[in-house]
Amino acid sequence: MIKIPDFSDIERAHARISPYVHRTPVLSSKSINEMTGVSLFFKCENFQKVGAFKFRGASNAVLSLSEEEAAKGVATHSSGNHAAALALAARMRGIPAYIVMPRTAPDIKKKAVAGYGGIITFCEPTLQARETTLAQVRADTGAAEVHPYDNFFVIAGQGTAAKELAEDAGHFDMIMVPVGGGGLLSGTSLSVSRLLPGCKVIAAEPAGADDAFRSFQAGILYPSENPKTIADGLLTSLSQRTFYIIRRHVNDIVTVSEEKIVEAMRLIWERMKIIIEPSSAVPLGAILEGKVNASGKKVGIILSGGNLDLGKLPF
Amino acid sequence: MIKIPDFSDIERAHARISPYVHRTPVLSSKSINEMTGVSLFFKCENFQKVGAFKFRGASNAVLSLSEEEAAKGVATHSSGNHAAALALAARMRGIPAYIVMPRTAPDIKKKAVAGYGGIITFCEPTLQARETTLAQVRADTGAAEVHPYDNFFVIAGQGTAAKELAEDAGHFDMIMVPVGGGGLLSGTSLSVSRLLPGCKVIAAEPAGADDAFRSFQAGILYPSENPKTIADGLLTSLSQRTFYIIRRHVNDIVTVSEEKIVEAMRLIWERMKIIIEPSSAVPLGAILEGKVNASGKKVGIILSGGNLDLGKLPF
Repeated sequence: MIKIPDFSDIERAHARISPYVHRTPVLSSKSINEMTGVSLFFKCENFQKVGAFKFRGASNAVLSLSEEEAAKGVATHSSGNHAAALALAARMRGIPAYIVMPRTAPDIKKKAVAGYGGIITFCEPTLQARETTLAQVRADTGAAEVHPYDNFFVIAGQGTAAKELAEDAGHFDMIMVPVGGGGLLSGTSLSVSRLLPGCKVIAAEPAGADDAFRSFQAGILYPSENPKTIADGLLTSLSQRTFYIIRRHVNDIVTVSEEKIVEAMRLIWERMKIIIEPSSAVPLGAILEGKVNASGKKVGIILSGGNLDLGKLPF
Repeated sequence: MIKIPDFSDIERAHARISPYVHRTPVLSSKSINEMTGVSLFFKCENFQKVGAFKFRGASNAVLSLSEEEAAKGVATHSSGNHAAALALAARMRGIPAYIVMPRTAPDIKKKAVAGYGGIITFCEPTLQARETTLAQVRADTGAAEVHPYDNFFVIAGQGTAAKELAEDAGHFDMIMVPVGGGGLLSGTSLSVSRLLPGCKVIAAEPAGADDAFRSFQAGILYPSENPKTIADGLLTSLSQRTFYIIRRHVNDIVTVSEEKIVEAMRLIWERMKIIIEPSSAVPLGAILEGKVNASGKKVGIILSGGNLDLGKLPF
């Protein structure tokens, strides 16, 4: 039996993490609205602590542990934003965070995790090595695993971004988020189904990593295999838990070309003067590519994060 | 007799332009504060309309014209943010803006000015050609010249940024701005001298374009000759008007190396997730280079703008 959060879990998560997370601003751009014919509201999780929404879920998971569990620390395998988020959330509670990272991870990410006090164990860059190493670390330390998205408290925490968006900017016709493992999408869909009756939830996924799209179409969970996209936060597969929520509460998943992801990213950089990572640009890319019928509508987009290597830009 | 605005002119400017300009946010970064040991508050004029503080001065100048003057339009020679700002301010009032630009100006700037409805006349890329062409355009049209900084109303308009900063973030020990022609610095110093008694005003200038620094030291206005810096908004010379104000109200001008300008720019991009142009990074560069004694102090920095070619980044 998989435990699924409901909206009351998101409310509890919000009360729990509010003292620690930024209530990020909601921004609009007149010129992007004119260009697209859509009234767009961007929830800026690129301004969140550690530069990504992931800090919401990680904080909620860390703060939900009992004293006894917490004392042994938390552990995960990740080379991305979740690793940094978990390290900072653990440091806030004064407990260790054991992070298993592939030794091939970019230096910038190793430094970020170390900078937040994470205790890194390097492994070979395969899923099997990551899982084996994590199991060993947990056996040695007794640390609690906090999965990046297949976790009750993480999903509830991610749902707080859409809750704030609804509270701060009123009703919407549509809320769009990118989808990788489905943690943000699950939490968002749970918040929207309660707070914004009649509002559609549309996920956008890179065409080069379209496992969630195919799974949603077929009703069968397909794993992500050889994904290829600049949106490096969206390479992972759905879990049974996130797929369950997504099938019930998400209206559609659409795919986006690499070209339109880069175009959307550049548009947001140039017009809004804010830095977003490629994953954040996928929903606007879907609108630019004509994949969603948003004309004349009020649409909220969660900008998932702003972490990328400035030395390797696609433009 | 050169007319110099006083604080009541800045107050009138603020009342005049407030319906049209963004009240830009003031942001802080915990990690940059920890790194520098300074409590920094950044006034984000990169989020201003046309992406730069220049829209404040241009709007004030355009809105201050009589009906009769305004009917003939406004004119300037500029290839930078002032050209775009004047074009948009004129369009807001429904009058023509005649912009003289060197034919060698980057495409991105030509498009920006044209996009705001500016009527462009191209000339050879010399100061003499720019001035001759502008005189001809004004003779043909009767348009009023709005100089980028040597203009009473422009200076008063630029002073509204520091006024908002003082109103929104309280007292400061020091306010820092970049200096090129001195419009922002003049307006800022006039606001600070009235609103923040005891607060120092420190200007930061690229070492490769240090004419304001040398002029301030010597008490003699030196023109900018063969300036060389990535901070392309700061290539111009002070005018008699801005130099007069700066000598009375500015505490110091310091110079900054190109290396520290780029380092400061990258730091703001990476830590704050906002896009600033190189000119905006000069004050933080001065702090990183140890050119100002800011340790433990509360310092306000006006981020002047966010316009640059994303295809030509220095990192």
